[in-house]
Amino acid sequence: MSSTSWVTSANHPECDFPLANLPYGVFRRAGSSSIGHIGVAIGDQILDLHACAEQGLLADLPHPLVAACRADLLNPLMALGPAAWSALRRCVTALLDAEKACRETQGHVAPHLVSMRDAQMQLPARIGDFTDFYASIHHATRVGRLFRPENPLLPNYKYVPIAYHGRASSIVLSGEPVRRPWGQIKSRVNGAEFSPAQSLDYELEVGVFIGPDNALGESIPIAEAEDHIFGLCLLNDWSARDIQSWEYQPLGPFLAKNFATTISPWIVPLEALEPFRVPAFERPPGDPAPLPYLTSPAPECAGIDLTLEVFLESRQMRQMGTAPALLSRSNLRDLYWTLAQMVAHHASNGCNLRPGDLLATGTISGENEGSEGCLLEKRCTGEPLCLPTGELRTFLEDGDQVIFRAWSRLPTGEKIGFGTCAGTVVEAASAP
Amino acid sequence: MSSTSWVTSANHPECDFPLANLPYGVFRRAGSSSIGHIGVAIGDQILDLHACAEQGLLADLPHPLVAACRADLLNPLMALGPAAWSALRRCVTALLDAEKACRETQGHVAPHLVSMRDAQMQLPARIGDFTDFYASIHHATRVGRLFRPENPLLPNYKYVPIAYHGRASSIVLSGEPVRRPWGQIKSRVNGAEFSPAQSLDYELEVGVFIGPDNALGESIPIAEAEDHIFGLCLLNDWSARDIQSWEYQPLGPFLAKNFATTISPWIVPLEALEPFRVPAFERPPGDPAPLPYLTSPAPECAGIDLTLEVFLESRQMRQMGTAPALLSRSNLRDLYWTLAQMVAHHASNGCNLRPGDLLATGTISGENEGSEGCLLEKRCTGEPLCLPTGELRTFLEDGDQVIFRAWSRLPTGEKIGFGTCAGTVVEAASAP
Repeated sequence: MSSTSWVTSANHPECDFPLANLPYGVFRRAGSSSIGHIGVAIGDQILDLHACAEQGLLADLPHPLVAACRADLLNPLMALGPAAWSALRRCVTALLDAEKACRETQGHVAPHLVSMRDAQMQLPARIGDFTDFYASIHHATRVGRLFRPENPLLPNYKYVPIAYHGRASSIVLSGEPVRRPWGQIKSRVNGAEFSPAQSLDYELEVGVFIGPDNALGESIPIAEAEDHIFGLCLLNDWSARDIQSWEYQPLGPFLAKNFATTISPWIVPLEALEPFRVPAFERPPGDPAPLPYLTSPAPECAGIDLTLEVFLESRQMRQMGTAPALLSRSNLRDLYWTLAQMVAHHASNGCNLRPGDLLATGTISGENEGSEGCLLEKRCTGEPLCLPTGELRTFLEDGDQVIFRAWSRLPTGEKIGFGTCAGTVVEAASAP
Repeated sequence: MSSTSWVTSANHPECDFPLANLPYGVFRRAGSSSIGHIGVAIGDQILDLHACAEQGLLADLPHPLVAACRADLLNPLMALGPAAWSALRRCVTALLDAEKACRETQGHVAPHLVSMRDAQMQLPARIGDFTDFYASIHHATRVGRLFRPENPLLPNYKYVPIAYHGRASSIVLSGEPVRRPWGQIKSRVNGAEFSPAQSLDYELEVGVFIGPDNALGESIPIAEAEDHIFGLCLLNDWSARDIQSWEYQPLGPFLAKNFATTISPWIVPLEALEPFRVPAFERPPGDPAPLPYLTSPAPECAGIDLTLEVFLESRQMRQMGTAPALLSRSNLRDLYWTLAQMVAHHASNGCNLRPGDLLATGTISGENEGSEGCLLEKRCTGEPLCLPTGELRTFLEDGDQVIFRAWSRLPTGEKIGFGTCAGTVVEAASAP
């Protein structure tokens, strides 16, 4: 039996942000020039933690935790670790729970609720480094087939959680337009030419915000890896496939990816996802076991059952009032590598992860048709995508809005949602 | 005829830091817990710009520039751009010039000189993103021959200034020990095993600190690219070759590189290198011309004549008092791509560069034997390296100190030096 909140919008069965979720974000009241405040999403409202701290509503918490709630970004809170996060979560739950919070408490808290309509979300943290993994074997295999038909999955894939460093500066928040990039594209006539990318794609991913750091030179044992995860968001790793295929050898993707990466504004704590723990991906017979440093002490609950969806809304659909079209649906549990394996691998050479660093899973695709996490993979299925308006899509067109959603739901109906991660492609800059 | 400083150590012909150099760094007085101060190297002294600002010695400069000199990192100064940097340089020159600074001025300035012996250098800036290029065609060809004998230089190399994103968190200052990383290494028996890297290497590079930013979505025309360069340092891109060769496909190097990157503490302004401008690398006949967005308006002075040297000192050499051995000498002018081309390419897709971001050239190697910028390339020459002690080296051993130096010298004898970029390999952590 799930708890209810006196913020009644949180109790609707389709609400992404019930009392059991309580994701963190940073917001400003729309139109204000004040600095960002840390907030917690509850129903269609945001509880202003900065204001709660100022008003003494968090007074039972240790001082460093209260101070972190007054920061303008989440980095200090991320640095404090799981015990502090749990304590804050219990405290916020008590303030918002219909049964735990008495009328008087509700009266004290209510003034610090800001309607999401009146808030402007910001990037939740100063992101020091951004690392993108490649953890879906289904994605790696389909894409590999296009680039290397004879050799789709490289021999290291089942041993190494493959990853590359991405760009932190161009991470933007959901809602920011994404400009079609210019870039070098291979040309049969001239070797290469410089033009707006024609093969613009999305990649459906989950972002992982790092909590406490590890010292440079010290690894993170896999048993402790999740203690370094503050929470999860949605992430769109926009990709220009024509730039990528020309530039990516031998050092990997660069300008094909670093023009923009969109994240959703709310960071869902791992604790909120506990009810959705599932076994790690079951490796097919014959696959090597993970090396010891990547072997989870509890593989039976190392995965997370999280449904992910991609929607597309073309300009024409928007004009005609047609609802965004569902392009695919996949699940975080189908990744070959778990989040803990990604963290442990990243730090296994002593690389220091810092609070606010962002990892991402790589494109999350399933095995079957309809679960491809990017348009490039859909090419494997043959026919170009047909939208409800009759428009065809091989890659993204200007005006297309890509919308990601994600949610977990218990058999009892309780849902933990991620909100949306959305971005609209705008036309390339005029010729330089 | 070069100018002389009343700080007499600056006038020695072998001094890296004469009046014509004036590189920037951030330091603390050794043993003090105070915040970092911006300083300028002059001879064996550091002029404390923070103190100069406090004492009104920079009072003729605009307020934002003086405020930037009081910051604890160089990012605010980097953001101000070339006109501000020139104004500050003129002002500091006037304070330190033996002829321009009267006795009274010298008396005001002298208390703000700190001996380098009494200073502890720090990272000069908050480095948001770190990007590593691959701009030496000699390096790319030699390394390519090892990885792909049949196909050493990939078809994109002469069109695309190849680069990848590196790790910002693990950038350390010269002098910090570098721990040998653990990592996955291909094994004939078990697929892969996890062990300390055996093939540890250095890479001789120049780092490029970015000045003013460009907005996300807007490119930087190549004619303006150098206005976005604050200055240069030395950079050692430590690389574990056995980890690299196993992990690098298809997304590029990751854990093989991100365990540590060492930079030298002093950032030499581009203005100090103006006398050493030379034509850009002359492309051999038959090579494609750079695409228009990479075509310099003034190729006759797009290169910089900067000699770079690698020295190695083993533990045994240190114990025996043997001087570090010169392993190789190369020159920045031999890069296939200029610094301006790197900046213009990086921003060509609208990727935003921010003040304090760090680019690096990639390993700087020459064409001839003795100019290889890393040990991996020396393998091409056959024999393992023999140190003066008789010790042999294929790759780095624990206790080895790698030292980079760089300098330009005019026919008149005037020298602009970079100081040193040094790091000593320490043994791997105990088994996890």
